[in-house]
This record gives sequence, structure tokens and C-alpha cells, in this order.
Amino acid sequence: MKTFLAKTTRLLAVAFVAAGPFFTQIAMAQENSRAIEFPDIPGYKTLKCDLHMHTVFSDGSVWPNIRVQEALRDGLDAISITDHLEYQPKIEDLPHPDRNSSYQLASEAAKNTGLIVINGAEITRSMPPGHSNALFLEDANLLNVDDPMEAFKEAKKQDAFVFWNHPHWTAQQPNGVATLTEMQIELMENGLISGIEIYNHSTYSDEALKIAMEHNLAVIGNSDIHGLIDWQYEESKGAHRPVTLVFASEKSKKAMKEAMENRQTAVWFDNTLVGYARFVGPLVESSLEIVRQDKSQVQGIEIKNHSDADFILENLSEYTLHNKASVFVAKAHETTIIQVKTLEVMDSFDLKFRVLNAFTAPDQHPEITFTVSIN
Amino acid sequence: MKTFLAKTTRLLAVAFVAAGPFFTQIAMAQENSRAIEFPDIPGYKTLKCDLHMHTVFSDGSVWPNIRVQEALRDGLDAISITDHLEYQPKIEDLPHPDRNSSYQLASEAAKNTGLIVINGAEITRSMPPGHSNALFLEDANLLNVDDPMEAFKEAKKQDAFVFWNHPHWTAQQPNGVATLTEMQIELMENGLISGIEIYNHSTYSDEALKIAMEHNLAVIGNSDIHGLIDWQYEESKGAHRPVTLVFASEKSKKAMKEAMENRQTAVWFDNTLVGYARFVGPLVESSLEIVRQDKSQVQGIEIKNHSDADFILENLSEYTLHNKASVFVAKAHETTIIQVKTLEVMDSFDLKFRVLNAFTAPDQHPEITFTVSIN
Amino acid sequence: MKTFLAKTTRLLAVAFVAAGPFFTQIAMAQENSRAIEFPDIPGYKTLKCDLHMHTVFSDGSVWPNIRVQEALRDGLDAISITDHLEYQPKIEDLPHPDRNSSYQLASEAAKNTGLIVINGAEITRSMPPGHSNALFLEDANLLNVDDPMEAFKEAKKQDAFVFWNHPHWTAQQPNGVATLTEMQIELMENGLISGIEIYNHSTYSDEALKIAMEHNLAVIGNSDIHGLIDWQYEESKGAHRPVTLVFASEKSKKAMKEAMENRQTAVWFDNTLVGYARFVGPLVESSLEIVRQDKSQVQGIEIKNHSDADFILENLSEYTLHNKASVFVAKAHETTIIQVKTLEVMDSFDLKFRVLNAFTAPDQHPEITFTVSIN
Amino acid sequence: MKTFLAKTTRLLAVAFVAAGPFFTQIAMAQENSRAIEFPDIPGYKTLKCDLHMHTVFSDGSVWPNIRVQEALRDGLDAISITDHLEYQPKIEDLPHPDRNSSYQLASEAAKNTGLIVINGAEITRSMPPGHSNALFLEDANLLNVDDPMEAFKEAKKQDAFVFWNHPHWTAQQPNGVATLTEMQIELMENGLISGIEIYNHSTYSDEALKIAMEHNLAVIGNSDIHGLIDWQYEESKGAHRPVTLVFASEKSKKAMKEAMENRQTAVWFDNTLVGYARFVGPLVESSLEIVRQDKSQVQGIEIKNHSDADFILENLSEYTLHNKASVFVAKAHETTIIQVKTLEVMDSFDLKFRVLNAFTAPDQHPEITFTVSIN
Repeated sequence: MKTFLAKTTRLLAVAFVAAGPFFTQIAMAQENSRAIEFPDIPGYKTLKCDLHMHTVFSDGSVWPNIRVQEALRDGLDAISITDHLEYQPKIEDLPHPDRNSSYQLASEAAKNTGLIVINGAEITRSMPPGHSNALFLEDANLLNVDDPMEAFKEAKKQDAFVFWNHPHWTAQQPNGVATLTEMQIELMENGLISGIEIYNHSTYSDEALKIAMEHNLAVIGNSDIHGLIDWQYEESKGAHRPVTLVFASEKSKKAMKEAMENRQTAVWFDNTLVGYARFVGPLVESSLEIVRQDKSQVQGIEIKNHSDADFILENLSEYTLHNKASVFVAKAHETTIIQVKTLEVMDSFDLKFRVLNAFTAPDQHPEITFTVSIN
Repeated sequence: MKTFLAKTTRLLAVAFVAAGPFFTQIAMAQENSRAIEFPDIPGYKTLKCDLHMHTVFSDGSVWPNIRVQEALRDGLDAISITDHLEYQPKIEDLPHPDRNSSYQLASEAAKNTGLIVINGAEITRSMPPGHSNALFLEDANLLNVDDPMEAFKEAKKQDAFVFWNHPHWTAQQPNGVATLTEMQIELMENGLISGIEIYNHSTYSDEALKIAMEHNLAVIGNSDIHGLIDWQYEESKGAHRPVTLVFASEKSKKAMKEAMENRQTAVWFDNTLVGYARFVGPLVESSLEIVRQDKSQVQGIEIKNHSDADFILENLSEYTLHNKASVFVAKAHETTIIQVKTLEVMDSFDLKFRVLNAFTAPDQHPEITFTVSIN
Repeated sequence: MKTFLAKTTRLLAVAFVAAGPFFTQIAMAQENSRAIEFPDIPGYKTLKCDLHMHTVFSDGSVWPNIRVQEALRDGLDAISITDHLEYQPKIEDLPHPDRNSSYQLASEAAKNTGLIVINGAEITRSMPPGHSNALFLEDANLLNVDDPMEAFKEAKKQDAFVFWNHPHWTAQQPNGVATLTEMQIELMENGLISGIEIYNHSTYSDEALKIAMEHNLAVIGNSDIHGLIDWQYEESKGAHRPVTLVFASEKSKKAMKEAMENRQTAVWFDNTLVGYARFVGPLVESSLEIVRQDKSQVQGIEIKNHSDADFILENLSEYTLHNKASVFVAKAHETTIIQVKTLEVMDSFDLKFRVLNAFTAPDQHPEITFTVSIN
Repeated sequence: MKTFLAKTTRLLAVAFVAAGPFFTQIAMAQENSRAIEFPDIPGYKTLKCDLHMHTVFSDGSVWPNIRVQEALRDGLDAISITDHLEYQPKIEDLPHPDRNSSYQLASEAAKNTGLIVINGAEITRSMPPGHSNALFLEDANLLNVDDPMEAFKEAKKQDAFVFWNHPHWTAQQPNGVATLTEMQIELMENGLISGIEIYNHSTYSDEALKIAMEHNLAVIGNSDIHGLIDWQYEESKGAHRPVTLVFASEKSKKAMKEAMENRQTAVWFDNTLVGYARFVGPLVESSLEIVRQDKSQVQGIEIKNHSDADFILENLSEYTLHNKASVFVAKAHETTIIQVKTLEVMDSFDLKFRVLNAFTAPDQHPEITFTVSIN
């Protein structure tokens, strides 16, 4: 489909040389149509991150270099491969003793690409405490201990950032309702858990969002991919992998960790944005550029959407629209024109929208206001 | 994009033989991807109608046969060509005396296609009363008189159905706010106006909708096309022409007129449905087929959307969803799967949604409830 | 599909304001993906022309302004509306006496667009002489005489360029084999016919091509459209209207006429190029840009195709290819990489191709040679 | 693009459950648009096979189950994973002693899918003899010996089918020209090599084809994939992996081996078919169904193409065509209409075509004849 404001087609700097050392191929720049795109917000870089994924080093089906190539195709800023510490179904063929291997191999593959690779591991236990991901580790091996509490303490010792994975996972919570146990409360109180997945793979939890907000946890969303990203989230169906958006002072591992510790995150999945109002509101505002056309009683306004989100907007302004009902969609990477019946020609007026596919709490949407002035 | 529930591709019975009598061509069945599709509702056929369009017989740019072919490509059930009675910019080349010509030529072109062609004309006056369309005429010539009131009376005499066109048109109402004049109130009170366009070409009016509801007028939406439908509403941009949906006891001119007189209409434009609650609600309910998967605590539900509308649904059920936030989209002609956290396995339960891109009054949405039972 | 060398998306300067004087709309620049694109050749501009079309002024279904808008969407440089002089099926509604009307209306519509509009008319007779188009007329009315020979003489008097239309038309030549009559030979000998359609609408004639070459006529190909161009030649099926390519010293009516009189034409239809070798060869050569990659024993070559043609190339070089069989396709507006096995690293070598979808005579293809040198 | 004869969209019986044992997901039938499709030929099933690929068990980047899923998506009938016996760059992490592992794991993954998995291995040596694939092995470990000749003899002992890989590979043959060594001639003479890759990954060799034909070897073409098939052969670019077509009496491992031993193969790559005339001719004939329309002097013929190949046809019939030049394309899975100028109405006549993108030897194309009869 042709659009007025075409999606930026970034060229991948890295060549996808498909074959091993025996083959060299003609490497060509490729359009990167899968790239997830959101603008930065005032004061912060918007980092697109997938912080939960698997390889052949636990129960995944690919070597770590594929995770790096997938991330580059998806335009991510950071990934963490978080192979299970305790679950090793391929152990017969990969009797590796070093739990840092997938991190090291991915780091090697990501060299010179700009992709941040974070050393991570999944602490894989029955409930409680269930599964948790520890990021920014120094040595994942040391977490591979019997007592789950000891694993969390070791993570703390390594100054890791730990979040609770898929608290709504039906294998551990059959009714799918994320519910805190005493152990988790203790972990949170001791600063051993700082975040919570509200979205995992293809599942969402309003209850997890509520827990996040009540306990001041970073909201997290990840693919938890085991097979291939492209097959799970098919571009031809308009699908994209869920990501954690981290609002960091700069694109660096350090700034990213700091941002996560400060709960500066949101989650993007299935054309939906979820997170704390102080970030989700600005993200929508930064995504939408409002341009006024020639002054008129029926004021033409261009809404340029610089993000991947098809925003569903409800008009809360005091004016009705000449070309739209009060709910309309501002499509991703397109310009939507609305005509505002301001009754008289105005030097300045406000447009106010409720963003129906963004959430700042269960059933709560951000409201954004744009002041449209003479120009 | 591939979809689970593909859009029915109807074969056009009529061959598009593009050339005149000098040429014959190989005519082939063609997929009709532009066809506008909505299901019938209990007790009524859902007729897709465009009741406002122009040809070279007033200020349009095509011969009437093109309007018929466009309508067939768009899957319409009925059209009315409503050339201006009083505005004749091509009069030098077409000094035709007969205002029924475009109807007659279109009828000829529509023979054996199933398309209903209605004799119509646009009474084209300055405000008040502005422009109005008279449908189901016997002889349009007789409406071409000096006094506008006489034109309306003649329409009445011919038992026509008359609606007020684009009451929000800025050329006659510079601020775009549809406003009743005394003359229009008189026309309504005397049964000389029975409907009102709330959507025209590419413009919408909440105020016209309010007038319709306060004065019990049929809600109407049309293309008012002068050039080519395909260029104005480009399929490649996902656009479709606005149509008046008429809920009639059968597909016939008579049943259609009766339905319009009973205000059994709704308007479909720009992925939005607007109309009286007693028709818009059932239309959404008929569009969505709810199929329950194997019983489970986290109950999988398939929502099969048999319509052209991408319905924006807000979950009002007492259960949260396992794979969606509380606002999600059920795409046109696709199956959307939702997973409902019913907490325990239920024999029967209710799903309730607010339909955010359907309106039963300004800022008011229909709410629909599906009872999901054992199967 | 994404391509390495994207089709130039020209912005249409003209806004498609669809409605008549009663409506104004937001006019926006649009991508022009239907535009037919071929490069200029050394010494000449390559003008894309459709020189045979109809409107409501004979047996077509549109007003002349639609033909102009279609031409702009198709990226044409010149058109001629050639309504039948003698065949007037709409005469009851359009009893126009002036055969120049469709030209005048089209000229008006084309003002400030850059499109050249040529006054033309179709001399519409039974065989012989069949149908012929006279272009560059001063007054088409004067050709509307009883004796066909007089019509041709009048065209000559007005210094028109005349070509024989669809000599293979089965309505006049039931076996489809273009055959010269004595009258046509006489017309050619007297300089009253200077060109011949080898392609008309959707039909082709090898025999017409043979006649063209034996009698030194300009080869011509046109749409002869009566309905809508977009429906006859659907972009979604990769179709394009047939055009006459005129190789002129500049883009002007005068230069174009001169070029046609000098037989400087070719025909582009259905991904096929046909014409005199002195123009078809250079056109292919100008379409393909050959870029050598780093020197190697297996020499990588980029073939950038700057035209709309998917060229089917047969390798006649003395080297075999490392990535292609000896027949391959260089797709329109893409870069095709071939790897040439030159056996040793060469400073300079020749690549030679037969172009299988281009014809310089029946069953004869142009052969083109590129010298690839150090760079 | 819509086509008259749509590509059969087969439903994948296997659900792509992306996650490991910790996750279950809603598995849904999916359209399989990547499926490679060719019809059977008289007397034989046409099996689509990729007989050269790698996994993490040598220098590939995926676990064997991914190769199975890729094959199912591509509609293949048979694969062989042929990890290098001697080249083990991941040996630190996979110190596996058993060279049959990737076969066993793929077999497990392919259970109940209908996909044939063949035990194979790549004998990976410097020139001579270079690389060769041994298929239908019983125990790949036994080929992992020092002396290359011993490896071939062991393959023979296990009744394997062995073919020479990429004889034109520039790492071993810098000028890319496939050249026989004495060792290879000896191997062929002793029946230790029975086939030769004429296409590997993205490279082709006319010289290899010549060797195949001179020495009666089976022609073979494979992906030799190390990374992901979907990235190397992008559907959005119309690309497909190269395959060996095996013409077997039935779909079984036994029949397939017998067919390969009898040289009943062809290669499909990059819209090109290459192989022995006795199979390539019938394959084109079976792909094209010729349907005659109503009898006429200008005889309409529908060519229904039931294959993935866009066939480039040169008309060698004694009749010219009314709608095509003498070279035209019959697109994959579409119906192409040609109009044949038979001069008079015929009860029966022959159509003859040269197939320009099929080869039965270097620079040699199959010629196919269809007798069109009364119907």
C-alpha cells in the first residue's frame, strides 16, 4: 500500500551472509521492512528490546547468531538470550558447562552492528517463585544452584536486574490470573525482583499490569521465542514481536540498566502500548506530529504518525470533525487529515484525544492534548 | 495478506466488455475484490446502495454505463443517478430535454445484472432549502420548475423519497455545522423530506446525525461521485465508497422504498457504521460469529468477522482476556481468537463488547452481548 | 515486492479534484505507480504516446477530461483523442456539429500539466480502406465527407499524419491477417498513409509489422480505449496500456510530428518492444546500465534496468555465467547480478545478449553488446 | 495479484508450535504459499527434494527440526541433512560422536508429516575429490575415515547414492569452470559417483551440465543452506530454493533411490528447469493444459499453467498469434489466452513451442507440441 509518509526503510549495515566459512556470497544492502519504529521522547532514547529468548543452549532451535540476525531485521536496540539454567533438553548433544556461552556467541555475532547484547539467564523453577529472568549478569553459572532464593541472591550480588516471567502462564497458574505468592512479595521487598512481564510471547495479563502498578515494578514484554521470530510474528499478517521499550538517557548497556531500575519502560505488542502514564503519554505525543493547514473555519489538520502504531483516537476536543466520526484511526507511518469545525477562524485552539489502544492501567487510556497555533 | 477467513470472491456475471459496438473481446470471470460485503440481519436483507451520483448529463465526467459498471465492481445492490436538474454545465454539447435520460441509459446498462437502478434527480437550490435528492421518480422533468417548494410537492405527487443532501456542505454552510432552517422544518413536517445525508463524498456530520435522530429521518450516506469511483476511493489504500445500507424485506425496488420510508437504514463509511441502534446493533451481531473452542479455564473463542468492517471492540465482559488488552480489533473477513479467563470451566457465559467504530448517536456506541454455550 | 532499484515515484503535479464546480477537496500529491517509464536514447527524447482513444463524442463512455487524467496517471507525454467522424451512436444526446470538441475539451483539461494533446479523428470506413487515424489536424470537421479518398486528401491538405488502424481487425479481416488492398497501396504511394498499427487494444499483428517494414511505415500501437484504461489494463495484474514510443528531438508537438514522419517510433505492449532496429536496439541499451564489481576471475556485473520492461536476455557472450543459465530475465527497475566466468581477470571484455522480448522484424531480435572495462 | 487459476493453498497438517515443552499454543492451519508446485508426469510422481543442507551438527545455525519445518513450508517431499563429516566448527559445544544425530532428530521432527528424511553426510575434502554427498546411508560414522577413497567405498558398501557437490565452487576451482580430475573419472567409472550438482545454493554451471550428460550422471540442484531458507530465498522477491526434482514411481524412499540411480531427475532453480529431455519435456507438457475455446478462424486457446514456472514460450507453430508476439510468457498458476490465426476453422491443428527457460543441454531447449482437437 502506498502511504503519504512512507516507513523509513533503513539499510541493514550487516550483510546476511547465509553460509558458513566455506561460502562467501554477494552481500547486498536490504530494505528492513520488519524494523520496529518508535520515536524518542523528550529527554530519552526509546530503545526497542527483547529480553527473553532461547537457543539450542536450552530448549530453543537456533544457534545464538540467528537471534542476533533476527534482532537486526526487527530493528531492535538490545536483546538478552535467557536460556534456562535448569532445563537442558539438548544436554546429550550440548553438554556445555558454561551458562554464558549463548551470550558470548551472540556478542561475537553482534560485533559492529550496534546491537546491545546483555548476558541473561532464566531461573526456571516451579511455583513459587516460577520463572524469572536475570539480566546484566557477570557469570550466569553462579546462579545455577539448588535453592531458588540463593539464585536470586546471587543475581543481586552480580547487580542484575531481575523480572518475573509470564506470571499468568497457565502451566503454573491454570486460570491464567497472575497472583502474588508470599515468596514473590518477599523477593520484591528485598529488591530481588524489579520487573514483571505483562506480555509474554502471545499472552497478556491485566492482572500483571495491576501488580506492576501496585508494587512499582518495571513493565516488561518479550517474545520468549524458541523457534523462528519470522514464523511466529509474520510480517505478511502485519504482526510484530512484542518488545519492551526502555526509555534511556542514551543507547548504552549502562543507561539501559539504569532506566530499567527506574521503571522507565513500556510494552508494545499487537498494536497496543501499555505502561506508566509518564512514558506512554509522551510516546504517543512524540509519535504524532500535528501540522495545521491554511487557516479556515473548518480547520484542516495533518496528523503525521511517525510510529509503528495504528493509533485509535477518540476526539475529546470541544469541536466536532468534518470528515471523521469521533473515533478514528491515525495509521502508522501515514498522514491522517482531520477537518476541525472550530466555528470561527482561530489563532490557536486545543485538540484533545483519548488513545484507545494505549493503556496506563487496566481500562485506562492516556489523554493527549495538542495546542494548534498560528503558523 | 493471507487471512484465515478469506473474503468471498464473487464472480461478476457481467463481462466488462470495454469497447463499443466495433469491438468484441474475450470476456472473463473476474474476482471482485472491491465488493462491499455485509451480512443480512434477522428479518432483513442488507442492501448496499449509493443514492447520489452524477454523469455527463449534469456535471459528471462519465456516461451512465460507467456508473453501473462501478456499482457492480463495488458489489452494490442499488444505485440512483441523481443529475442536477438545474445545473447543466455541459448543456452546449448535451442540450437534452429529458431529465430521465441518465436513468434510462443506466437501466439499459444494468439489464440482467441484478443491480437495481432507481430514477432520481438532485433538486439543486441555494439555501434554503439547499440540495435534495428525490428518488423513485416517475418523470424527473416535472420537478424542473422555478419555485423550490413546487419541486418538492411534485416529488411528493410522484410518491418519491426525498432526502436533504450534505447539510454540512461548507459552500452553503461555511462553518460546516448542519443547521435546520424554517423551510426544512416545514418540509419535514409536511413529509416532503424523509432523510438526511450524514455522510457525503468524504465529509461527515455529527450535527446531521443529531437532526436525523431528533426528527426521525432516515440516515443516508453517498459518494456524490462526479469523476471515477476507483480514483476517489482507492482499493490499494483500503478505501471504499460510502454507502447507505438499507434493511429491506427483500431485494426489490418496492421493498427498498418501503424500508427507507420506515427509516431502516445505516451508513457505512471509512470503516465506521452509523445508524439507529435497532439496526446497527444487529448488523454488528450478524457480522460476528462466535465459536467456542474446547472447554477450558482459559476459554478460547474464535470471532469470525463476516463483514468488511475492522471492528474495534472494547471488552465489557466480567472476564479479562489472556491474549488481548481490553480494546482490540476484529479484522474484516478474518478470524480473531480471544482467550477468556473465566476462572473456572463454564457451561455458558456472556461476552459483552462496546463497538467503538459504530455509532447509534453522536459519541454513543452499540453494546453487544454474545452468550457462549456448551457445544 | 521490494526492489533494489525502486521505480521512480513521480508526484503528479495535477491534483485529481474529482468533483465539479460544486465541490472542492483536499488535493494531495500522489505516487504515480502506473507511470510508464523508458529512458531517452542518444539524440532523442523517448515520448510515450497513446494516439487512438474515444470519448462520449463518438462511442466512448467518458468525457475528454478523463482521458487526460488517465494519461497523466500513466505518465504519458502525448495523447490524441480520435473520435469516429462517421460513427456517432450518442448523437441523440450529443448532436454536436463540431468534430474538434473532444480535442478542445481535452486541451483545456491538460492545461499546465505538460501533456501534449493532438487534434485527431478516426476516418471510419468499411474495407477498403478500413479505419485510419489522422493526427495533427487543424479542423477535423472538414474530413467528414462522403468519399473516403477525399477525407485522406483533406488530411494531407492539413498536413496531418495518417496511419492505418488495426489492419488485422477480425470485423473487417475475418482471418486476422493484415492484407494490403490496392487502395491502401495507392494511399501509401501518394503519401496519404505514413504509419500502421501493429498493436491495437489487445491484439497484435506480425503481418502488419511486415507491411510496415516493407513499405517503410511508422510502427504504431495504441489502446483504442472506449471504457476506462484502469479496468482494461489492471495494474494489479501487472498490465499496462500499449503505447507508441516516439523518439523525438524534444518534447513538443512539432518535434513529435517530425519524428513520426521520419518513422522514429517503436511499440511497447504486454512486456514486448517492437520497432525498427535503429531505435529498439538503442532503447534496450539505454535501459540497461552495466556496472562492474571488483575485478575477479568470476566477474560480478550489475545490470541496472531503468525501464518498465522485464527483459528476457539470451547470453551470446563467449563466457558462461556462474549464477544463471544462458536465458535469464533482467527485471524492470531492478538490479540483476550476473557472474561472468571470464576464466582470467580481464581489463576489458564484451557481453553480448539477444533480447528475446524485443523484435526488429517478425521472429527477429535485437542483439546488444556491452563492453565492460576497467573502472 | 489475483489469478484466474489460483495457486493451490495446501494446509499444513503440522502445527507450528513454536515453543518447547514448556509452552503449548493454539495451533492453526496455515496457507502454505511458499510450497513449490509441479505436476506429476506420465508414469512418475514428481518429488521435490533438497538433498544438501546443514545444521548445528556441522557449520549450520539451526537445529534439525527447523530444516524439517522449512521443508514443510516449502512443500518438499524429501530432504537430506548432509552435515560435514570432517568439518566441525562447533565441536567445542557439540562434541557429539554420532554422525547420524541430525538425521535422527530430523526424522523424529518429521514424524507423521509425510516428509521423507534421508540419512546423508557430506564427505568434505580438498580437491580432488572435493565435496560429495552420500545419501541413503545406514551409518554415517563409518565414512569418517582418513583416506577419501575409503569413504566412497564405505558409501558404496552401504549402497548409498553419491553425487559430486558444487564442482564449480570457486574456493576449489577459482575460475568456476567445473573440470573433471582423474580421481573423479575413476570414481564415476567405479560407480562411486552417480550424480553431480549443476546448481548449488545460488550458483549454476553449464559445464557441470555438460559433464552430467557426457557421463550419464543424475543432475542435482540443492540449497546447501546453512542459515535460514526464508532469508536466503525471500518469498517477497519471488524467490524459491533450488530443488532436485526426482521422477519416481511412487513417493517412497525406495522408489526415490531407484529413480536417482536411473538418472530420473531434473533441477528447478530461479525460474529455470534443467535436465534430461526425456523428463524436462514431459514436465513442461504436464504443466501446461491446453483448452480450446469455441471454434473460430482466430482460434482462442487457454493455456493453464499448473506449475510454479513462468514459462517463456517461443511460438514455432505454422500460425502467427493475434494477441502475442512470437515470444511470450505463460505465467505460473495462471491461465494465458492466446489467439491462433489458423486462417480457416480447423478441426484439429498443432501448436509447437520452444521453452526458452528450460534446458536439455547447454543452450538447448525442449520443443513441445500440443495437438488441439475438436471438443
